Amino acid sequence: MVFPGEPILTVKAPVMEAQLIETAILNIINHQTLIASKAAKIRRSAGNDNVMEFGLRRAQGPDAGIYGSRASVIGGCNSTSNVLAGKLFDIPVAGTHAHSWVMSFPSEYQAFKAYAEAYPDATLLLVDTYDTIKSGIPNAIKVFDELRAMGKKPLGIRIDSGDLAYLTKKARKMLDDAGYPDAIICASGDLDEKLIQSLKIQGAKINSWGIGTKLITSADMPALGGVYKLAGVVEKDGSITPRIKVSETTAKITNPGFKKIIRIYDKNTNKAEADLICLYDDVIDESKPLTITHPLETWKKITFEEYYIKELSIKVIENGKLVYNFPKVKEIASYAKSELATFWDEYLRLDKPHIYKVDLSDRLLKLKTEMLSEIRK
Amino acid sequence: MVFPGEPILTVKAPVMEAQLIETAILNIINHQTLIASKAAKIRRSAGNDNVMEFGLRRAQGPDAGIYGSRASVIGGCNSTSNVLAGKLFDIPVAGTHAHSWVMSFPSEYQAFKAYAEAYPDATLLLVDTYDTIKSGIPNAIKVFDELRAMGKKPLGIRIDSGDLAYLTKKARKMLDDAGYPDAIICASGDLDEKLIQSLKIQGAKINSWGIGTKLITSADMPALGGVYKLAGVVEKDGSITPRIKVSETTAKITNPGFKKIIRIYDKNTNKAEADLICLYDDVIDESKPLTITHPLETWKKITFEEYYIKELSIKVIENGKLVYNFPKVKEIASYAKSELATFWDEYLRLDKPHIYKVDLSDRLLKLKTEMLSEIRK
Repeated sequence: MVFPGEPILTVKAPVMEAQLIETAILNIINHQTLIASKAAKIRRSAGNDNVMEFGLRRAQGPDAGIYGSRASVIGGCNSTSNVLAGKLFDIPVAGTHAHSWVMSFPSEYQAFKAYAEAYPDATLLLVDTYDTIKSGIPNAIKVFDELRAMGKKPLGIRIDSGDLAYLTKKARKMLDDAGYPDAIICASGDLDEKLIQSLKIQGAKINSWGIGTKLITSADMPALGGVYKLAGVVEKDGSITPRIKVSETTAKITNPGFKKIIRIYDKNTNKAEADLICLYDDVIDESKPLTITHPLETWKKITFEEYYIKELSIKVIENGKLVYNFPKVKEIASYAKSELATFWDEYLRLDKPHIYKVDLSDRLLKLKTEMLSEIRK
Repeated sequence: MVFPGEPILTVKAPVMEAQLIETAILNIINHQTLIASKAAKIRRSAGNDNVMEFGLRRAQGPDAGIYGSRASVIGGCNSTSNVLAGKLFDIPVAGTHAHSWVMSFPSEYQAFKAYAEAYPDATLLLVDTYDTIKSGIPNAIKVFDELRAMGKKPLGIRIDSGDLAYLTKKARKMLDDAGYPDAIICASGDLDEKLIQSLKIQGAKINSWGIGTKLITSADMPALGGVYKLAGVVEKDGSITPRIKVSETTAKITNPGFKKIIRIYDKNTNKAEADLICLYDDVIDESKPLTITHPLETWKKITFEEYYIKELSIKVIENGKLVYNFPKVKEIASYAKSELATFWDEYLRLDKPHIYKVDLSDRLLKLKTEMLSEIRK
């Protein structure tokens, strides 16, 4: 998770080199962090259900689909319908057939039968091309019966339109009555984390979700406002002169100087309690209580006694050489999952989440305040 | 302009070939149409002011920035800050320096001076790094005076934060008083077509706009819901059997059969009056009055007497060969501009625009109604 004001990347380089990578870095980090965050919200709403990323046709260009798939899996999706992303990043590929498959055959039954013959071990049938209840599900059950007679186990159905709560409850009953209690019911159609919650509250019988447009574009918040700012200048003698950008909008004032970021955990629960943005040479003595101060509402202080800290920054490039082994997408996904588990539910809920504390170290706050006072003089 | 339900692309191909290109075509057309439409709204609000596309760092991946720039220029932007897009599509590149340019120098004045020395004929200075009124504009004027003494004409300033209405009015007065009435005032910072209108109403003195995040992501509507549906099957004897996809959601029911799209213009004003989705072999006799019927509210009919029609479809590929000369981006932009001019303002306004008529030909409506009745039996 990234919190407002947190430095997620520090670059120390000759100004032309540092400048050259600005836009590329912002573009990549802003986009993929955004989509991974959206996927994490969808994953939370979906619980342990299967979640498939289905968004390529609505993504903002080819890369948005490909790297959006990658980010979706990092955020918690099980798979993607994007086969190129699957190949590039070694992530699971999943999907069903399209409406056009059904429409290209003289009848729905013939289309289902042909699909079952092609994929006898992965027969997931899209049942809403003509009439879900009167035609789609009965035809699917007919083909499932034929598969069963051949010793195969049908996978399930997908419903892509209509009242998903009503239709999936009805579908569940029809499938159960026909002897397919294990058949998956997959739902899709402009879904997001809020609609998933709503459908669950309504008792919809869905155990697999295909999420497209709303995920691949992060529709309710389609941009993450990460910035890349000059924080200091290395002088000829090696010392660092911090720099600050001022703004009438307080949130747009930068934090001066080279920094590192510390996460504070509670020793008893192992839950994250706050992040502390520090100057790079700040020292925290974990044997002593740690008091942190809200950077604006300075009467808000909190003291940790039973705590431990972790520095979040990782060295990727040193003296121009790559010194980091990039993990695989599946490893990043697993890391993201374990990190998210260190946050209390109150921070992760969809509506009005509790605001996670991101404070400045005493030295950094003092430096910032002094520099601002100097400029305002 | 694309209207709901309009076929903007017809593909007649073996089913595997037609299927293979589905996702690529949807991805490309949905994305670029979306961004071009957003740019057209921004252009309308900006009037004849200069509009620069500034969004790459917030685009949803590299392609979204590159092809988003292209679409922005098609929709009405004058230029982009994306130099790769400029090179790829031969579109103008424009921009100013960043805050980091100012911050990397010991003082704002030194930064401005160095920039003016590097670009003596294109000195556009970003004045909001420290304090726009007290420091940025006075330093800019100081450097402008030095440029003028050298016989050069300074370009202007950019303001990227703060109260743009207040600051630009103040800036205009300071620049005018210093003898720079022609100096451009460029504004940026999370702007969109509505904020541009609001700033104009407030009398802000802005004659150049840098539009980033809200344009490059089409933030208020980040996806266009274009679909690609099977409309018919060519039988062995060459005849076409139309197919239809049914949905509980009426808007999701497809229009069956191979189609063409006709735009109806008023003979006296040359304004577009309605679009008519027709079967490919529909014939319209322009010498006779033409009555069209709303596809759902069938009591709504309109008859054109003084009209002419234009078929909107263009043949791109014939018998597997490209038969179309792709225009340059500037030509597409100019075509888009002239086409938009054929629509009454009532269709183009931002809030509650009048709904442009898109009706079905009598034969198509009859075919669709019959097929739906047949399926519902």
